[in-house]
Amino acid sequence: MTVRTTLSSPNAEVVIGFDAPFCIIGERINPTGRKKLAAEMKAGDYSTVSADALAQVAAGAMMLDINAGIPLADEPKILADCVRLVQSITDVPLCIDSSIIDALEAGLAAYEGKALVNSVTGEDESLERVLPLVKKHGAAVVAISNDETGISTDPDVRFAVAKKIVERAADHGIAREDVVVDPLVMPIGAMNDAGRQVFTLVRRLREELQVNTICGASNVAFGIPNRHTMTGIFIAMAAGAGMTSAIMNPLHAEQLVAVQAANTLLGHDPDCMAWLSANRPPVAEGAAGGRRRGRAGGRRARSG
Amino acid sequence: MTVRTTLSSPNAEVVIGFDAPFCIIGERINPTGRKKLAAEMKAGDYSTVSADALAQVAAGAMMLDINAGIPLADEPKILADCVRLVQSITDVPLCIDSSIIDALEAGLAAYEGKALVNSVTGEDESLERVLPLVKKHGAAVVAISNDETGISTDPDVRFAVAKKIVERAADHGIAREDVVVDPLVMPIGAMNDAGRQVFTLVRRLREELQVNTICGASNVAFGIPNRHTMTGIFIAMAAGAGMTSAIMNPLHAEQLVAVQAANTLLGHDPDCMAWLSANRPPVAEGAAGGRRRGRAGGRRARSG
Repeated sequence: MTVRTTLSSPNAEVVIGFDAPFCIIGERINPTGRKKLAAEMKAGDYSTVSADALAQVAAGAMMLDINAGIPLADEPKILADCVRLVQSITDVPLCIDSSIIDALEAGLAAYEGKALVNSVTGEDESLERVLPLVKKHGAAVVAISNDETGISTDPDVRFAVAKKIVERAADHGIAREDVVVDPLVMPIGAMNDAGRQVFTLVRRLREELQVNTICGASNVAFGIPNRHTMTGIFIAMAAGAGMTSAIMNPLHAEQLVAVQAANTLLGHDPDCMAWLSANRPPVAEGAAGGRRRGRAGGRRARSG
Repeated sequence: MTVRTTLSSPNAEVVIGFDAPFCIIGERINPTGRKKLAAEMKAGDYSTVSADALAQVAAGAMMLDINAGIPLADEPKILADCVRLVQSITDVPLCIDSSIIDALEAGLAAYEGKALVNSVTGEDESLERVLPLVKKHGAAVVAISNDETGISTDPDVRFAVAKKIVERAADHGIAREDVVVDPLVMPIGAMNDAGRQVFTLVRRLREELQVNTICGASNVAFGIPNRHTMTGIFIAMAAGAGMTSAIMNPLHAEQLVAVQAANTLLGHDPDCMAWLSANRPPVAEGAAGGRRRGRAGGRRARSG
């Protein structure tokens, strides 16, 4: 059994799937917590947006998340501007990210291809407003497993919310393959059981509900030291539990190399070709070769 | 349901268990592939053995594997010497590692406490010779899931061999808790499915056979570049699938940090205290603090 969510731009297609390599969705184009970027975007300066788009794709992003959530700004216009701009300079499909329905609508109207809408929740208002939009534009959608009662700390409740969203999407004519469930990742520093909960939930979502899964990976290590190493290990373990995509930062080598290793270990890297290519030894392999090989950490994949 | 394998020395006890932090067993005291060490050990020079013991324990090893497999050497005597020596300078329990029954016997006779015997296979001769020895010395044993027909590439066959060993051990009065199964890790470069097979098998061994598991972790990345990073990610994913111990190299920061992160993410690190202690920011946190924090890779746990 396999499940495939296909996203597209005019020139490219990406599959999130049980039988596909883990889908890396670049998280950087998001003004939350980035004051300078927020000010630029609000002023119509998209130079950082362009640079972040190109850098993430060069590092290995297979899709890009675009978020324009800036207080007191014209979010629908900025989001649509960014969608058009990023589509003009890269071929990767986009994830259109907003909690405001008008912004999602503007972003989708500007987008060419099949986008991933981020997100719908289990709240009735969200379901009734976002799902018709997703259907109208032939998009796929991220389903976040919280509802009117908030984010439950009980994984069974989160599973039930995800199931409800998948069923409601079906009522709107949206196939199960086009719903990618976010089990919600809590910071491990605040909730000791956060990792184990996600791993268990992801396995159930895959085996019982048969859906692809996604998460905002960097949240898990919020506030703790050596954060990107922890995030990388989390992503690899989540992939091992069955997670098929993440919104993450491919510019951090610790996150990128973890995905690459997980792909290889899960059988998604035939003959280890991707691993070998990302970890090619230095060209000059003469007398110094032996010593260079001794420092394993020195040959990390494209570093941020 | 939990399963606990308790190993001991005169002054310390270590638990390999479903509800315990991942057990790191240092692999370094092994002359295989270490010509200089082999020559030293054969000549009765155990200075490297001492240094390796102390360094691995300082780095985080909770047990040490002791192997004295040197061609044309008096393996029983050397193994017993090493067991006595290492027990005189560290408190960690030992894993007595040999394919020669007389060496296992000599090592066990020299050992004080409850040791882990490495290993018994599913071959009748091995079962009939090793298990009585394990029982006689009140030890635990590593069960390697191959038999007369060799190492099967079919995980179902390997599961069946493990089950047979557990049953045969019970016939000899050895409890299921005292059999730690090695599912056998193949190099990913030679067998693309090696990772996924181990993860699936480990889950079955834990859920169906209810045994602890162990592996020689570094084998997975044999012959490929950036080897220790791949090994670290493998260990974390194996832990996520339910593996509870590994013979590995804690002197490689990539392996050690992966275990630490996996422990935290699996709920075996209350309040992240172990992670925080291993990844403490530099003491001088003044003006330069912000910049230092920017380099996530720089603050790896005790590096090798």
